[in-house]
Amino acid sequence: MVPRKTTTRARLISTAAELFRRQGYAQTGVNQIIQEANATSGSFYHFFPAKEDLLLAVVDHIAEIFDTGIFSPAADRSHDPIEEIFTIFDLYRQQLNNGGFTFGSPMVSLSAEVSENHPQVRARLAEVFASWSGRIEGLLRRAGNRLPPSLDHMGLAQLVVCTIEGAVLGARLNRSLAPFDAAIAQLRTYFDLLEHRMGAAAVAPAGRPVPATSPQTADWRSW
Amino acid sequence: MVPRKTTTRARLISTAAELFRRQGYAQTGVNQIIQEANATSGSFYHFFPAKEDLLLAVVDHIAEIFDTGIFSPAADRSHDPIEEIFTIFDLYRQQLNNGGFTFGSPMVSLSAEVSENHPQVRARLAEVFASWSGRIEGLLRRAGNRLPPSLDHMGLAQLVVCTIEGAVLGARLNRSLAPFDAAIAQLRTYFDLLEHRMGAAAVAPAGRPVPATSPQTADWRSW
Repeated sequence: MVPRKTTTRARLISTAAELFRRQGYAQTGVNQIIQEANATSGSFYHFFPAKEDLLLAVVDHIAEIFDTGIFSPAADRSHDPIEEIFTIFDLYRQQLNNGGFTFGSPMVSLSAEVSENHPQVRARLAEVFASWSGRIEGLLRRAGNRLPPSLDHMGLAQLVVCTIEGAVLGARLNRSLAPFDAAIAQLRTYFDLLEHRMGAAAVAPAGRPVPATSPQTADWRSW
Repeated sequence: MVPRKTTTRARLISTAAELFRRQGYAQTGVNQIIQEANATSGSFYHFFPAKEDLLLAVVDHIAEIFDTGIFSPAADRSHDPIEEIFTIFDLYRQQLNNGGFTFGSPMVSLSAEVSENHPQVRARLAEVFASWSGRIEGLLRRAGNRLPPSLDHMGLAQLVVCTIEGAVLGARLNRSLAPFDAAIAQLRTYFDLLEHRMGAAAVAPAGRPVPATSPQTADWRSW
């Protein structure tokens, strides 16, 4: 009994997530969700007394997809905190590419659609974005003295998250990953300059920067 | 006769822009627009044979608001191209603040809502964003040798536009300008580092950077 209920609930959530993405939250009727999820009205209202309860579950579902599909694999693949940040971008990019520029947009679309009229969902979305910023901030702190000590780690993390969200929007509008790639390349240059600043703190007598450990820092010198 | 018609058309557009912002495009019925704009169904369909025609006019209307309310005043107030970019941010911030975190979002909201199902509107929105990036790119080029010659000017312009769009979303979600301010502060640091790199190209024998002309570059040295 319990597994079956769990499956119906999961099916309702993933069906709703897809419908919300495609046609928006307001435009998606409960009946369509029930029908496409092959569920019953009884089970729907058992799990989700109000449509907004489903919306909250969809937000959590999307956050989980990001965790298992992007953040966790990036952590597994990277041993360097700054590389882990750029691996997150790479994996996000792959998902965007595979999904025909629609992946990732559920969060942006829902934010744009519901932030005026659904305060509880708005707060939950803000929490999810904050958890992403917090994760990036943690990675920046782990980079230690490769970054300037006076760096606003949380501020840079917020720039990263804002940039990605804006870049996803740009990629969708232009049906091209070019805006996303351009934004990431610029973030890379910014990171390289921040790292280089630490390298340059110990300037050799001839005025040449001390060789740095990061391959990116090496790249930037020929930039 | 002509001015009256023009006024009705303008009223339909600004009413629709506000309704689309508040409740979304799909959720806004033509009848509600006609009623709130104090117009008639005849005049509506005279100006806008289809609801999508109105949507295109709304996109142009919002683009015009950005031109007259942000880009033109920023150009008037600034004599320095890089300062003009940051004046654009300041004016945008003021609008966000005055509008209770809703200004600016029509473009983001419409992009999120219509980019899947309205290819013509998606293309128009992409043009508007491209015109903004192009404007920023022009300012970056005007900064001349204050920025590295190998800089991807268009790429940096795209980063700027992506960041702002993402930051607006963050400000709305958090009901706070903090994410917007954090993102802008980081962009400022990035610009300062790019400018400093040009200053550092002529490193003094003692390893100290040659004093730079920009006040931002001066700030960054104590950063």
